[in-house]
Amino acid sequence: MFCWLSRLFRGLSRPTGKTTQPFWGFLSRSLILTSQRSIPELSSFVARTNTCGELRSSHLGQEVTLCGWIQYRRQNIFLVLRDFHGLVQVVIPQDESAASVRRILCEAPVESVVQVSGTVISRPPGQENPKMPTGEIEIKVKTAKLLNSCKKLPFEIKDFVKKTETLRLQYRYLDLRGAQMQYNLRLRSQMVMKMREYLCNLHGFVDIETPTLFKRTPGGAKEFVVPSREPGKFYSLPQSPQQFKQLLMVGGLDRYFQIARCYRDEGSRPDRQPEFTQIDIEMSFVDQTGIQSLIEGLLQYSWPSDKDPLVVPFPSMTFAEALASYGTDKPDTRFGMKIVDISDMFRRTEIGYLQDALSKPQGTIKAMCVPEGAKYLKRKDIESIRKFAADHFNQEVLPVFLKANRNWNSLLAKFITEEQGLGLIRLLGIQEDVVLVTAGEHKKACSLLGKLRLECADLLEARGVVLRDPALFSFLWVVDFPLFFPKEEHPQELESAHHPFTAPHPSDIHLLYTEPQKVRSQHYDLVLNGNEVGGGSIRIHNAELQRYVLAAVLKEDVKLLSHLLQALDYGAPPHGGIALGLDRLMCLVTGAPSIRDVIAFPKSFRGHDLMSNAPDSIPPEDLKPYHIQVSWPTDSAKESSLSHSCHPES
Amino acid sequence: MFCWLSRLFRGLSRPTGKTTQPFWGFLSRSLILTSQRSIPELSSFVARTNTCGELRSSHLGQEVTLCGWIQYRRQNIFLVLRDFHGLVQVVIPQDESAASVRRILCEAPVESVVQVSGTVISRPPGQENPKMPTGEIEIKVKTAKLLNSCKKLPFEIKDFVKKTETLRLQYRYLDLRGAQMQYNLRLRSQMVMKMREYLCNLHGFVDIETPTLFKRTPGGAKEFVVPSREPGKFYSLPQSPQQFKQLLMVGGLDRYFQIARCYRDEGSRPDRQPEFTQIDIEMSFVDQTGIQSLIEGLLQYSWPSDKDPLVVPFPSMTFAEALASYGTDKPDTRFGMKIVDISDMFRRTEIGYLQDALSKPQGTIKAMCVPEGAKYLKRKDIESIRKFAADHFNQEVLPVFLKANRNWNSLLAKFITEEQGLGLIRLLGIQEDVVLVTAGEHKKACSLLGKLRLECADLLEARGVVLRDPALFSFLWVVDFPLFFPKEEHPQELESAHHPFTAPHPSDIHLLYTEPQKVRSQHYDLVLNGNEVGGGSIRIHNAELQRYVLAAVLKEDVKLLSHLLQALDYGAPPHGGIALGLDRLMCLVTGAPSIRDVIAFPKSFRGHDLMSNAPDSIPPEDLKPYHIQVSWPTDSAKESSLSHSCHPES
Repeated sequence: MFCWLSRLFRGLSRPTGKTTQPFWGFLSRSLILTSQRSIPELSSFVARTNTCGELRSSHLGQEVTLCGWIQYRRQNIFLVLRDFHGLVQVVIPQDESAASVRRILCEAPVESVVQVSGTVISRPPGQENPKMPTGEIEIKVKTAKLLNSCKKLPFEIKDFVKKTETLRLQYRYLDLRGAQMQYNLRLRSQMVMKMREYLCNLHGFVDIETPTLFKRTPGGAKEFVVPSREPGKFYSLPQSPQQFKQLLMVGGLDRYFQIARCYRDEGSRPDRQPEFTQIDIEMSFVDQTGIQSLIEGLLQYSWPSDKDPLVVPFPSMTFAEALASYGTDKPDTRFGMKIVDISDMFRRTEIGYLQDALSKPQGTIKAMCVPEGAKYLKRKDIESIRKFAADHFNQEVLPVFLKANRNWNSLLAKFITEEQGLGLIRLLGIQEDVVLVTAGEHKKACSLLGKLRLECADLLEARGVVLRDPALFSFLWVVDFPLFFPKEEHPQELESAHHPFTAPHPSDIHLLYTEPQKVRSQHYDLVLNGNEVGGGSIRIHNAELQRYVLAAVLKEDVKLLSHLLQALDYGAPPHGGIALGLDRLMCLVTGAPSIRDVIAFPKSFRGHDLMSNAPDSIPPEDLKPYHIQVSWPTDSAKESSLSHSCHPES
Repeated sequence: MFCWLSRLFRGLSRPTGKTTQPFWGFLSRSLILTSQRSIPELSSFVARTNTCGELRSSHLGQEVTLCGWIQYRRQNIFLVLRDFHGLVQVVIPQDESAASVRRILCEAPVESVVQVSGTVISRPPGQENPKMPTGEIEIKVKTAKLLNSCKKLPFEIKDFVKKTETLRLQYRYLDLRGAQMQYNLRLRSQMVMKMREYLCNLHGFVDIETPTLFKRTPGGAKEFVVPSREPGKFYSLPQSPQQFKQLLMVGGLDRYFQIARCYRDEGSRPDRQPEFTQIDIEMSFVDQTGIQSLIEGLLQYSWPSDKDPLVVPFPSMTFAEALASYGTDKPDTRFGMKIVDISDMFRRTEIGYLQDALSKPQGTIKAMCVPEGAKYLKRKDIESIRKFAADHFNQEVLPVFLKANRNWNSLLAKFITEEQGLGLIRLLGIQEDVVLVTAGEHKKACSLLGKLRLECADLLEARGVVLRDPALFSFLWVVDFPLFFPKEEHPQELESAHHPFTAPHPSDIHLLYTEPQKVRSQHYDLVLNGNEVGGGSIRIHNAELQRYVLAAVLKEDVKLLSHLLQALDYGAPPHGGIALGLDRLMCLVTGAPSIRDVIAFPKSFRGHDLMSNAPDSIPPEDLKPYHIQVSWPTDSAKESSLSHSCHPES
């Protein structure tokens, strides 16, 4: 059912082309499910008796008081009033005795706030609006009050979609009036509430607040600093409550959770926020399966009722498999196009490029089939794919069109033997498809095809092929990550793949002392539709092991973590946990194009609050108590920084 | 029922002399009430089948697995295992076949973490412990696992009360194992959960997160600054989400709440924290009564089930009355000792001091009766009271002992006429009491007696008089505050009594343009047992009025708030709200001596994290991206700052 109300709001819907959610209907439904016994009273404690969207024929004859914004007026006869719950039609009285009411309702500008009292009456026969939830009734007004007049808006609320992101952020309070933002923020509140019910009421978790004024963690280059009143001493805004949640386990608070505000200073990055929120969980006496079951239950319980229920358990995949088949540690499993290793097929090839690749360590030949690619991918698509591979991976990609004969640029095709061709067709199930072939070191080749897989999916969808069902939420656990990676700049040194508190895989623990680079960890990631929405691990609870990892393997200064090491010595229980990125999760659940659309007051991608103009200058005397002063860049540096800050925001 | 378990934990109870809460009993009871349908599963997803504290005779014969800390061992025959839920007795097997189990359980140091599996059996007749909730049963162990061994602790957990606050904060993770901290943090989690149920599920409030990286508010001298990567530009950590919640109202999110982290840099102040939490609420279309009813319902709904239910509505008192009768804007109404104006009785007095006082503007004579004061207050008490008045208020206090004849220092008594004496007895209901009399300007005289009222109450209670029932929670609304106060340093200028967004009282609005100092506001404070636990107001929603207050009355730079003023112009609904101080509220509810006892990881009163040593030094190169450098104090200043930081923490 697609009512005219939502058409009114259509301008506000996200620009992905999907239809707008009729959010008020959803809200009432899901709220009923939330409390499982009573609908919340939306008009308690306030001047109104009802919300605008809730009136039906069953209310006929009732005296009601409504408060809302003037959506529009029709010929000074009808006025449509809006609140967060919907729209209702108000009949403007025409008789002389109601002149003052008439004046108020006819003169107040659109988006002014009014309070009206009157009777719910049925619309005259033939004038019902079946597409409007309140379309059978209207309000016969007795009294009206102008609560606040609205000046000329910087844009029409209904036309919002045409406004730039900058304008939306600058007038965020107007943007929030739109149906989509109302839906996103209200759904977020509800999902979080259900998560709390699940954790607190069903499973005895304790909601504990941890400090955000902390000290810098080793290697915490992305942590904002907060000067204190002691000269040279700084707090740090933590990237997560990691240390605190482990200390809570040592403290016997064995089922902890927190919807935690976290901070990360990454400078300007698209679709990141300097402050973000995670659902932070830690448990004692738990293993990987325990955490995974908990999270599956949590998501199932809190999943919006207007979507298909989640099926649990979620599938699981090792890091190695994810890399080999999808070229990434966060595979989008909504569609196929898996990467296939065709090295064996070409062991005795005469093609030099392939021969070369196979002769090197970890050398492989990988292929990926783009379904219907021969039909939909244009010459320039293939060219841009090859250019991408060359630019970003310094790697050759060879397209093969086996069925059709349009083998542009395919050096490969002419060398392929009949047998190899049939083998490929069998292995990849090729029809009118394109096969992308690359050769090289395993990880690099897979990563490249993993990127191309997503690129090609975008290309195919732009041409109308439905690859990824927008109603599908494909959760996946990725497990058995390596515990350490070689450092990018000093490959002979190791760094934690995730963080230094991650426990090694029990089967690999002996390797820690001999071949640490081969140790798998007890880390797990939760992936949704190709996005990492959570990650966690079983932690090291043995002080000696933790000291060994920090000092011997990672060469870290153990002193900085002495409090944690000491805590592990004093009866730390085995423990593990996880954190879900709430902003990203809500972004995916609502189908929003950006996490900014699920946050009430987001920063621009440069970290600015465009509404209030934060960050802002501070007079030097206000910095004095903190014993800091600004180091102004030299003139040339200043210029470049100025031109930098004049860039458009989005 | 006071079980031996709680005696075990008694060392951990707060030093106020009250008995320890048997917290596990409380927890189970109140959790049942919270979810109103099911007890939370405390052992889902983890290695244990049960918690240590929950086993009863009804579990006899069950195979169980328990995880916990070794509380103590008795003669290598019994071991008592503890988790957050209670204690249970484990029988250490004595037969040869169980040698390995025996070794684990006998050799592990106290506070080590073990996992045991076995059968619930009944204790031999005569060995039951009726004071222990699990006292009818014990565990016959089959297998045992040492999960983590505990090194020698810096102190015995049971003796904790004797440790300094510094030691408690340094080893916070051990302090958290104590019964009192477990009770405080778990109760806090539960009360907050119930508040969320009330707001979200029962009344349709939307939980919305607002930014903590904001910009400085006008006059925000107590706001921490956070340098950004733009030279000279700083974020600010806000003291409250005030502006954001008002903007949410403009955005049509008309029932907002948030359990909000707030920041205030007040340097070193006892029992304050640089970060704190408030229950932050805002509603559209609401008046003062609406907010008050909401809060009364909220507290009633979330009130701990081990305390007497709250009676609502709470009493209300004007600011003027609170000042006149209690000498403060946050009266402790658990006891009497009200201040009485006795000016009229002494209009024709011959006592020069009183004559003088009455002849001045606002001159009054005030009296307060200290019940049984003649019996309990010693000469030195009276002297210290008079000294306090002289030192802090530059004011004379005269004690009068009307019944007894012990009129030390009472210049007053000999001048009092028979008639005045009888009048005082009638007015104050004096028996074996002391009356403290002072004369001077109304506000000053009241404030002095208000302080002395609390001082005397402490003195009397120290002598064994029960004045304030510790089980009594006396909530009070204080209303009708002045909108502005004269600035302390420039009394001809006005400043907001609370904040510049507070709406004037409708009856006084005409005075705003003529005698603004006389305007009362629509601000309200919630007071509990003499502590301010919340405050809020109906806000100004009219842009013109807000501009007038900011520019004409307060002489503020309107530009800094241009985004808010603009928002009010674009159809802002009438709105109001409140914020409750969660830390203070929990401190009073649990009877904790300090808010540090209801916070998992508090800072010391100097703002230090004694466990991790925050704030800490940061290498200059890490400050570079933020374009700041430390301004080191000169040598003399450095020395004083060093000696300052060497002060003991508590």
